[in-house]
Amino acid sequence: MLSRSKTVDFLREIPVFSGLEQTALERICMQAHDLDAVKAKLLFVSGDPAEFFYVIKSGWVKLFRETLDGNVAIIDILTTGHMFGETSIFEDGAYPYSAEIVEDAAIIALPLADLKQEIENNQQLALAMLTSMARYRKQQEQEIEHRTMQNAPQRIGCFLLRLTRQNETGPVTIHLPYDKTLLASRLGMQPETFSRALSKLKEATGIRVKGATIELDNLEQLTNYSCAACSSEFPCKDIAASSS
Amino acid sequence: MLSRSKTVDFLREIPVFSGLEQTALERICMQAHDLDAVKAKLLFVSGDPAEFFYVIKSGWVKLFRETLDGNVAIIDILTTGHMFGETSIFEDGAYPYSAEIVEDAAIIALPLADLKQEIENNQQLALAMLTSMARYRKQQEQEIEHRTMQNAPQRIGCFLLRLTRQNETGPVTIHLPYDKTLLASRLGMQPETFSRALSKLKEATGIRVKGATIELDNLEQLTNYSCAACSSEFPCKDIAASSS
Repeated sequence: MLSRSKTVDFLREIPVFSGLEQTALERICMQAHDLDAVKAKLLFVSGDPAEFFYVIKSGWVKLFRETLDGNVAIIDILTTGHMFGETSIFEDGAYPYSAEIVEDAAIIALPLADLKQEIENNQQLALAMLTSMARYRKQQEQEIEHRTMQNAPQRIGCFLLRLTRQNETGPVTIHLPYDKTLLASRLGMQPETFSRALSKLKEATGIRVKGATIELDNLEQLTNYSCAACSSEFPCKDIAASSS
Repeated sequence: MLSRSKTVDFLREIPVFSGLEQTALERICMQAHDLDAVKAKLLFVSGDPAEFFYVIKSGWVKLFRETLDGNVAIIDILTTGHMFGETSIFEDGAYPYSAEIVEDAAIIALPLADLKQEIENNQQLALAMLTSMARYRKQQEQEIEHRTMQNAPQRIGCFLLRLTRQNETGPVTIHLPYDKTLLASRLGMQPETFSRALSKLKEATGIRVKGATIELDNLEQLTNYSCAACSSEFPCKDIAASSS
């Protein structure tokens, strides 16, 4: 029982569930169970019949698909407070991507059937899902734009800026959230391209890279360089929206 | 009155509205008006307050955003039966992109307020919107994947394959839907890159290009080449899903 009320509390922190009534959240969490997932564990594979959606309490999860010729396309890398697998409800009940643990993780698994039933009967949840999907849609549009308009160093700069509190003034220290090989593939680059691009970014902006730590004198060092090839303004509006 | 009932009939052909009751469709169409739009007309600009969503009866419309340094990123190019501007409901009431007519078009403009009210009160419509957005989300994920995993000739081949009836056997003739400059920017390429990539695609696959017409001996000529760098199977599942 304690565990269930903790799960309800945790879910309430996720924007899509935050406005729901307690009883609705309890119905969604009724059959939730915790999952300890070790690095490299494959949670499910694209096309698998989908029974659960997942919420991350800690750790990192990689969503990806494999091409016929054996390359891996990373869709996203998620952490605490992120949810995945939930759109399978609208996908003939099959997962549209594969999911693998990239850092030891604590994960909540919840039955899709319970979520589906709640969405079908609870207009408030259906609308919250729509809002959340519209926001995600805009982020994806921006990702498509960036893959075309930004060069590789600008794309790294953009990724770094999105890790900062964007209203900071003065010196800023950024810690890379996961290793550089994973980061390269998250950004759609080969590791060699990533290395060259990071060197170029250092030259162009004067940022200092020490292992997984990056130091800037101020945010302008990066925004002048990266945001020129973006159609949004800095600070990024979608980050402001999802944290509010 | 005739015009309104025609509008209702037209909207019923769009998947997201197809399951709605007649009275619900009539409420959405109550204040619809026709719009004759000539080539190069700008319907709205990204960030404009959003009052209407639009449905295309004929012609072509380009959705795009401009980066700070003045480049144009094409989000999509739409035609008959496509809808746009509707997600502004979930975007603080501002258009998330700009829209321009690229070929003389007949367009229906419908007030977002009426759509919003219907979504909020009609669970069936909210669920249909969710299904439609989930499908779009998967297409976008695939677009992101393609921009990373496919080289330029493969991307052109993929675009061409999506214009065919994918279960055809034997010789196939494809007509490009709009001019090559627009097609290049739809695929996120500079015009020169597009030309070189098209030449390379011809060499690699033996397809014949005559102006805006492209001839193949059979679909395998292109699928063997393009679909190797894709995580989906051919025929493309999303096309099958949206035409059903």
